[in-house]
Amino acid sequence: MAAAAVANGGVSTVKLSSTPEIGRYSTVYSELQRSRIDHSLPLPRVLAGNFSVVDGPKSTAAGNPDEIAKLFPCVFGQPSSIMVPSESEGLSSTQKLKIGVVLSGGQAPGGHNVICGIFDYLQARAKGSTIYGFRGGPAGIMKCKYVELTSDFVHPYRNQGGFDMICSGRDKIETPEQFKQAEETAVKLDLDGLVVIGGDDSNTNACLLAENFRSKNLKTRVIGCPKTIDGDLKCKEVPTSFGFDTACKIYAEMIGNVMIDARSTGKYYHFVRLMGRAASHITLECALQTHPNISLIGEEVFAKKQTLKNVTDYMVDIISKRAERGFNYGVILIPEGLIDFIPEVQKLIAELNEILAHEVVDEAGVWKTKLTPQSLELFDLLPQAIQEQLMLERDPHGNVQVAKIETEKMLIQMVETELEKRREQGSYKGQFRGQSHFFGYEGRCGLPTNFDSSYCYALGYAAGALLHAGKTGLISSVGNLAAPVEEWTVGGTALTSLMDVERRHGKFKPVIKKAMVELEGAPFKKFASMRDEWALNNRYISPGPIQFVGPTSNAVNHTLLLELGVQA
Amino acid sequence: MAAAAVANGGVSTVKLSSTPEIGRYSTVYSELQRSRIDHSLPLPRVLAGNFSVVDGPKSTAAGNPDEIAKLFPCVFGQPSSIMVPSESEGLSSTQKLKIGVVLSGGQAPGGHNVICGIFDYLQARAKGSTIYGFRGGPAGIMKCKYVELTSDFVHPYRNQGGFDMICSGRDKIETPEQFKQAEETAVKLDLDGLVVIGGDDSNTNACLLAENFRSKNLKTRVIGCPKTIDGDLKCKEVPTSFGFDTACKIYAEMIGNVMIDARSTGKYYHFVRLMGRAASHITLECALQTHPNISLIGEEVFAKKQTLKNVTDYMVDIISKRAERGFNYGVILIPEGLIDFIPEVQKLIAELNEILAHEVVDEAGVWKTKLTPQSLELFDLLPQAIQEQLMLERDPHGNVQVAKIETEKMLIQMVETELEKRREQGSYKGQFRGQSHFFGYEGRCGLPTNFDSSYCYALGYAAGALLHAGKTGLISSVGNLAAPVEEWTVGGTALTSLMDVERRHGKFKPVIKKAMVELEGAPFKKFASMRDEWALNNRYISPGPIQFVGPTSNAVNHTLLLELGVQA
Repeated sequence: MAAAAVANGGVSTVKLSSTPEIGRYSTVYSELQRSRIDHSLPLPRVLAGNFSVVDGPKSTAAGNPDEIAKLFPCVFGQPSSIMVPSESEGLSSTQKLKIGVVLSGGQAPGGHNVICGIFDYLQARAKGSTIYGFRGGPAGIMKCKYVELTSDFVHPYRNQGGFDMICSGRDKIETPEQFKQAEETAVKLDLDGLVVIGGDDSNTNACLLAENFRSKNLKTRVIGCPKTIDGDLKCKEVPTSFGFDTACKIYAEMIGNVMIDARSTGKYYHFVRLMGRAASHITLECALQTHPNISLIGEEVFAKKQTLKNVTDYMVDIISKRAERGFNYGVILIPEGLIDFIPEVQKLIAELNEILAHEVVDEAGVWKTKLTPQSLELFDLLPQAIQEQLMLERDPHGNVQVAKIETEKMLIQMVETELEKRREQGSYKGQFRGQSHFFGYEGRCGLPTNFDSSYCYALGYAAGALLHAGKTGLISSVGNLAAPVEEWTVGGTALTSLMDVERRHGKFKPVIKKAMVELEGAPFKKFASMRDEWALNNRYISPGPIQFVGPTSNAVNHTLLLELGVQA
Repeated sequence: MAAAAVANGGVSTVKLSSTPEIGRYSTVYSELQRSRIDHSLPLPRVLAGNFSVVDGPKSTAAGNPDEIAKLFPCVFGQPSSIMVPSESEGLSSTQKLKIGVVLSGGQAPGGHNVICGIFDYLQARAKGSTIYGFRGGPAGIMKCKYVELTSDFVHPYRNQGGFDMICSGRDKIETPEQFKQAEETAVKLDLDGLVVIGGDDSNTNACLLAENFRSKNLKTRVIGCPKTIDGDLKCKEVPTSFGFDTACKIYAEMIGNVMIDARSTGKYYHFVRLMGRAASHITLECALQTHPNISLIGEEVFAKKQTLKNVTDYMVDIISKRAERGFNYGVILIPEGLIDFIPEVQKLIAELNEILAHEVVDEAGVWKTKLTPQSLELFDLLPQAIQEQLMLERDPHGNVQVAKIETEKMLIQMVETELEKRREQGSYKGQFRGQSHFFGYEGRCGLPTNFDSSYCYALGYAAGALLHAGKTGLISSVGNLAAPVEEWTVGGTALTSLMDVERRHGKFKPVIKKAMVELEGAPFKKFASMRDEWALNNRYISPGPIQFVGPTSNAVNHTLLLELGVQA
């Protein structure tokens, strides 16, 4: 094929409906964005034809079912719902529904398609229904700030990244007053249902809303949808959260490029910090996609009770061995939340928070004597810039801002120091130059992969059907994801079945526990079986940019396939 | 289409020839990398059939032709070469050539394809020829470190990013001794020709080698190829350097993603520093592709003699106006070399280098009194972290390491400070939170776009033909790039015609002047005509990931099309 004189990013303007805020500007699209709008989405076979919604067995809770039952007297123990093919349409097609939808928390590729899925379901199966998009996250519910979603309004967002259709927010509906506001909105808009698209906290919140509405005898049902690029909201019935697939592939593209650069240049160690504060799924998935020399997995560091010195030594050992083989370069992946997994660092930070709240930090360092000996030793081990960051950058409550610590730069300095020590001892003769990277915001709003596009659309379609069937307190569940889309299973899972309790301020609080990297799970075991090979030999893989057509366009991430037992 | 259970990055192992260094490990490929190996490349029509090499008019120099003529007595004034279709093959197909090739300087996507182009030319038109790849850049020539390139050896690198086939290096062949080493290698390997793939310096070096070989009556001819992601090696006959297209598209993908994140989140200003120290072409191209709110172009800052305060105020004015419209977010592009373009910063750094070489830096700051008043004022304006960086981080010669200054972080702090001032004055009421990014290494080794793949292949094929025709001291030139590949023109341009002289250490040195962003050129003018609109309204475009098939896969970058007059 010949390259023709087409401008890259040739643009076309798609006028949005003139709604007060969003319609203020019209959106400009690249050729690729526009081509994605027209990408037609497959539906699971069961949703494409007539189906009815069938109940599974009663559910319990992930932990402490008695406490969860007490916290959710109306919705606890509900059975799962499963969509099954039927001769005739199981649900009334003449019923008109009023449904609200809200995006909650951080962006994840595919959110718009969940909304499109709900919209298209209602258009197809409950014609004349109304769908409201709450603006700016849960605050939009509380303040009754919304936009009515029309065909023209949702169209430009089909298969697009971002949450800019109705935007998101991090507010929570927590206090009795806030629940009251949500009720008022539900009544005012005469809502039959609400779909909450969010992570673990937002889905817990969705269940509390479901419970609250039912206890108040409101007709408004609530369905959750699993969103987070971090991949830490999942269980048997919900095999993955949307956005994880796209975000990991974007990060892996960058990592793969940096790897080839490292091998071509031969003189840099690239330390790549990846988003994912609580769990290390992103780092693990990117490692499986790209085969870096070193990948730190927070859950393993925690399980092995490793110290920062242990972690540093692990890296330095590999770097030294590589130098002996003539490789003075490499790529190292670091989860954003690494230091949260190191107990001694947590202890140091707790002590610093305590001391700095009461003591004057004197030049002579008398304040340091208040630290326990272990914490003092750790503090002295840290590079000066990190010491200063710990001392100076505090949040409004006076606490150390752990999130602001640039872990990758800290590790580069610690590795440098240790290598210098070894050089003096004669056990290291290589050259070390570190380059730091942080990949985060680049991955949250990319164009969703074909997988995330289809998965989100099915999640939304299912959420519409569950509300149509009068279900509440469920999370939209799409399974059999290793098979072609047509064969995916569809249903809903009781949100209470995902829950446990945590004791906070003397009270039990319901939580959906974050799904951490399982050290006995297939993805980590595959990684662990290969990492030594990757460490010393160069087995880099460069996945390249996400493709939307062609042989690689329907690929599914390793974590999901391994967890489904599809990939050895 | 249904998503099937294909593992993303499904891998295949391609065994490399067992050469001493590179064959030590076999390379592992992703599905996409492998599919790119098999991507067949179109050739300009003139190269696909019989052609002869015709001379154009005699050439001169870009400046000071008399001095250039003195520096290059053997090769100065050579005519351009143009490939034209002919009835019969113009060059002897029985001649067997021995050709060396070297990659010089930083990575750029497409380098491997230049080598494949030379290889395939020789296979097709001078069967039985030998091609040697010098290892690790020009040092490989001097040390006679090479590998013989065979069909099996080059195959896995077709259409792949990186320079890892033979690696690169930044050494230069400068001293009489080094030229002697190069001669020895040329004689030892009985080289008919050498292709130097590099930037402005490397091509100057290529011409010096051509001159040297000819003056010594060696048969070895030298041809250059234009490589650099920075896009600053170009002229009428060489419309672009390879790698620029791919690198800019990779950066634009990331910028586009960050833009949608900014709009979805509504609370961050993303300050994106982009590679390109000498010229701001990358920033300009990325701006044209993505429509950021602010883009700083070094050449404009320099032409307008702007101060750091001017630059800061420009940004703060826009941020304030956006806040009035309710937009407390945005995206700002910054060329890596920005501060090199600000005269007052250069002056401060020169003074600091001088002072710090002789004075003790005292806590009380007496040393500061040695600064001129303007420099002192500027120094005090800088954020503390930058002040410390200027004082503490010095290279082995004691000089301030300008390259290590994280300009994007510096600007975030300066903007913050100025906004606080305006808040106190009551003229700013918004919220400002900066996020910093640096996109550089991610773009140098990506899979080359279809454009770069084809362009490089043609450059290499042409280089082979020029050597076959006995040409020396030319740079491979492929033109008419806005047309389909088949219609591209092919030839060679006298390297001396690109040159001017610079006076260094009392001597004239030949240089190929870097092509800077022309403020009267079409790309900048288009940008300048649109930036006010982009600043206050949100006209973000997200180009998305590079596609290798489909409607967007043959797109060409804006800069090239505008310079060719194709795009209005």
